[in-house]
Amino acid sequence: MLSLSIQNCLRSRIGSRGIAPAEIGKYRSNLESARGSLESRRKSGRLGFFELPYNEGEAGRMEAAAREWKGRYDNFVVIGIGGSALGNIALQSALRHPNWNLLSAKERRGGLRLFVPDNVDPNLIRGLLDALDVKKTVFNVVSKSGTTAECLANYFILRRELERKAGKDAAKKQIVFTTDPEKGYLREVSRREGIPAFDIPANVGGRFSVLSPVGLLSAAATGISVKELLRGARTMAERCRTSPVLKDPASLYALVHHIYMKKGSPIHVMMPYSHQLRDMADWFRQLWAESLGKKLDRKGGQVFAGPTPVKALGVTDQHSQVQLYMEGPHDKVITFLSVKDFGGDVAIPARDGHYLGGKSLARLFKAEERATIAALSSQGRPNLAITLPKVTEESVGELIFMLELSTAIMGELMDINAFDQPGVEQGKLLTYALMGRKGFGHHLKSFRKWL
Amino acid sequence: MLSLSIQNCLRSRIGSRGIAPAEIGKYRSNLESARGSLESRRKSGRLGFFELPYNEGEAGRMEAAAREWKGRYDNFVVIGIGGSALGNIALQSALRHPNWNLLSAKERRGGLRLFVPDNVDPNLIRGLLDALDVKKTVFNVVSKSGTTAECLANYFILRRELERKAGKDAAKKQIVFTTDPEKGYLREVSRREGIPAFDIPANVGGRFSVLSPVGLLSAAATGISVKELLRGARTMAERCRTSPVLKDPASLYALVHHIYMKKGSPIHVMMPYSHQLRDMADWFRQLWAESLGKKLDRKGGQVFAGPTPVKALGVTDQHSQVQLYMEGPHDKVITFLSVKDFGGDVAIPARDGHYLGGKSLARLFKAEERATIAALSSQGRPNLAITLPKVTEESVGELIFMLELSTAIMGELMDINAFDQPGVEQGKLLTYALMGRKGFGHHLKSFRKWL
Repeated sequence: MLSLSIQNCLRSRIGSRGIAPAEIGKYRSNLESARGSLESRRKSGRLGFFELPYNEGEAGRMEAAAREWKGRYDNFVVIGIGGSALGNIALQSALRHPNWNLLSAKERRGGLRLFVPDNVDPNLIRGLLDALDVKKTVFNVVSKSGTTAECLANYFILRRELERKAGKDAAKKQIVFTTDPEKGYLREVSRREGIPAFDIPANVGGRFSVLSPVGLLSAAATGISVKELLRGARTMAERCRTSPVLKDPASLYALVHHIYMKKGSPIHVMMPYSHQLRDMADWFRQLWAESLGKKLDRKGGQVFAGPTPVKALGVTDQHSQVQLYMEGPHDKVITFLSVKDFGGDVAIPARDGHYLGGKSLARLFKAEERATIAALSSQGRPNLAITLPKVTEESVGELIFMLELSTAIMGELMDINAFDQPGVEQGKLLTYALMGRKGFGHHLKSFRKWL
Repeated sequence: MLSLSIQNCLRSRIGSRGIAPAEIGKYRSNLESARGSLESRRKSGRLGFFELPYNEGEAGRMEAAAREWKGRYDNFVVIGIGGSALGNIALQSALRHPNWNLLSAKERRGGLRLFVPDNVDPNLIRGLLDALDVKKTVFNVVSKSGTTAECLANYFILRRELERKAGKDAAKKQIVFTTDPEKGYLREVSRREGIPAFDIPANVGGRFSVLSPVGLLSAAATGISVKELLRGARTMAERCRTSPVLKDPASLYALVHHIYMKKGSPIHVMMPYSHQLRDMADWFRQLWAESLGKKLDRKGGQVFAGPTPVKALGVTDQHSQVQLYMEGPHDKVITFLSVKDFGGDVAIPARDGHYLGGKSLARLFKAEERATIAALSSQGRPNLAITLPKVTEESVGELIFMLELSTAIMGELMDINAFDQPGVEQGKLLTYALMGRKGFGHHLKSFRKWL
C-alpha cells in the first residue's frame, strides 16, 4: 500500500521552517468541510472522477478492444493533447519497458507500440509519418468537446494518410474516437460513419480523465492491466473516504501544501526517484497548475492564486536543480516519489579496486535518494515522501487517485473552483480568429497591439 | 540571425507591470562592468567556455572519429549525467529526426542511434541492455573529474557487458572517454589501457561544456555538423562583444530577468514553440538554476538567491500550464523560443467543411503562438521572444552561446559566483558514506536523524 510521510515538514525535523503539529490540528474542521463538500457534489453527480475507478464494465470493453488489435496491428497513436495525452504518456513510461517502441512484437507480447504526438509542429507529424506503417496502426482520436483544434488538425491529416494507403474502409477498423457520450463533432462523425467510440463521461473534466477511456484505452493497447489500475484507485478512494481527515493521505498532502503557500513557498516540486515515474510528474503538473491557478475565488474576489508545480527527477536533477533547492530562496516544497522494490537490480562489477565495485545500482539509487533528502532537510527545506511498494498497475492507480483527490481538496482549502479553466478561453478565441474561423474575427480587435 | 525581443516586458505594452525604458538605462554601467569583469577573467584563462567556439581543431578530430564509427557501429551511448547529458539530448532533439532511433541506418545516412542513460535506476539500464546490441555500440564515458558515481557505475556495468559479448579487446575500439586532459581516474585508465579520450578543458565547468567534446562528440556521431554549431556560437560571441551593452542580447536577456527578480517575479519559464527545441529548455534549466541558485554572495553575505527555471512547451502546455500563467500570481517571466521557418509544412485536408481544412500545421502552430503571447500580454504578464530564423546547427549554436553568456552576466548582476556549486557537496559526501567508501563514514554522524 502506498504511504505518505510528512515528517520532513515538521518543526521537530527541519527547525523553524517546519510546521508545528498544532498548526495541522487547527485545520481539522476545514478538511472535514472540504471532504464533505466534495462528497455532496459527488453524490449529486457533478464530480465524475470519483466514479471512474468503479467502472469495471468499461475496463472489460477496453481490454476486449485491445485483444482485437493484438497481432493485427503494430502501432497505437493517441491523437490528443493536454489531459488527453499526459496521462497516457505517464502510464506508458511507468508500466512498460523503457525502450518499448524498439522491442520486437514478440518481446512486447503483442502489445502495440505507442505514439502520442501531442503538438502541431509540422516536424513532429512528418516525423511520425516517416516512422509508422499506417496500414498497421490504430488511431485513437481523443477530445471530449470534439473541438480541440490541435487534435482535429492531426486527425484530418492522419486520416487522409490512412485512407490513401489503406483505402476508405480502413477508417472504421483503424480509427477509434474517445469523446462525449452524446454531443460534439466526433460523436456525430461516429454515428454517421460507423466509427467506434468510447465515452468520456460528461461530468469528467480533461485533467481528471486518465482513469476513463481517455487514458486507459492506449494503456490496454500496450498490454497494461486497466482492471488492476482501477483496483488500485478504488483502494485509495475507500481509504481516503474512511480515514479520519488527518490520516487521509489526500487531505494531508493538500494541507501541507496549503500551509506552505501561506508561509511563502508556492513552488511545488515533484521529484520521483524512479525513472519510470518521471512522466507522472508532468501529468501532475497539469492537474495542479490548471486546477489551482485562478484569478477569482468562489465569491468572485480577485486572488491571482495558484502554486507553480515543477517537475524534477532523481538522481538526474541532483546534477541540475538540487543546488538551487539546497541554497536558493525558501520558496519550495518538494515531494519525493519513492519506490521500495525496483523489481530487479543490476550488480556493479569490481574494477580497479573502486569502492562502487560489488555494490548494485539499486543500492546506489537509494543511497542518493536518502542523501539528498537528508541534505535538504538539514537546510530546513520541507519535503514529503510518497512511497510505492513497487511500480505496478495497482500502486500507480493508488497514486493517481490520491493526487486527483488531493487537488480537489486543495481547491476547497483555497476556496477556488478547481474544475474550470477560464484563463485559456481568450487564447482559443484568438486562435480561431487567426485561423479564419467564421464569426470569430472580431476577437482580434482589442488585441491588435500584441499581434 | 537570432533575435531577441523584450517589447512585451515594457510598460508601453503590458501596463504597470512592465519596465519603464529609464529603468533599463539605469543599468548601463552595471552591465558594462559585468561584461568587463567577465572579459578580464576570460583573458586570464579562467572562463574556458568563451574559447570553445574557436576550437575548430577539436571539431575536426571529433568529425574524424565519427567517420570511423559510421557504417561500423549502429549505436552511440553517452554515459554521463547533468552537464554531461543535457546538452547532448538537447542537440539531438533539435537537429535530428524526431524518431531517429526508429529509422533504418540508410534513413540515418550512417549516423548512429543515440542513447543517453542519465540515471541509475536499475530498470533504465536493464532496459538499455535489452534494446542494444553491444557489439555494434560505441560507449562514450563523460566525466570531467572521473569521480561521478552515476557515470562510473554505469560504465563498469556496460564495459563488462561489452567485454563479455565482444571480448577484452573491444574496450579500446568501442569505448571513448571525455574527461580532464591531465588528471582523474578516467584519464589514468586511458593512459594505462590505451582507451582513446577527448579533453574537457580544465577551465570549463560541466554546465558550460556543451560546445566541448562533452556535447559535441555524440552530435558528430549522429551526423550533426559540429563545425556549424561552433560557427553559430562564434557569431553570437562576436556580436555580444561588439554591441553596445543595451543592444547585446545576452546582456539584455540577463537584465530583464534581473529587474523582474527585484520586482518579485523569480520564476523564469522557457517555452519553445518548436517541438525540436523542447530539450533546450531542460539544458537551460540546469544552466540557470545551478549557476544562480546560491546561498552566499561574493562578499560572503547570506542571500539565498536564485530564480527557478521552468520548462514548458508550446502548444502542448497551453493545455497544462497556461491557465496558471494567465491567472495565477504575478511571479513569472516567460521566454518564448520562436521559429520562423519550420523547413517544411503539412497541409490540413478539407473534411466536413471544417474551418481547419485547407490551412496548414505551421499556420496553426504560429497562430497559437501569437494568440498565447497576445493573451498573456493583455493580462500584464511579461514575456520575451528569442526568434530563430530556422532550427539549424548555426542558430542553435547562437542560442547556446547567448544563454551561457547571459547566465554569466546574470551572476555578475546578482553579485554571486555563477561557476561553482557548493550546495551539492553535502549530498555527494553522504552518498559516498552510504555506499561504504573508505574515509567517508564520519559524514553520516550529524545526519542520523534524517537517514
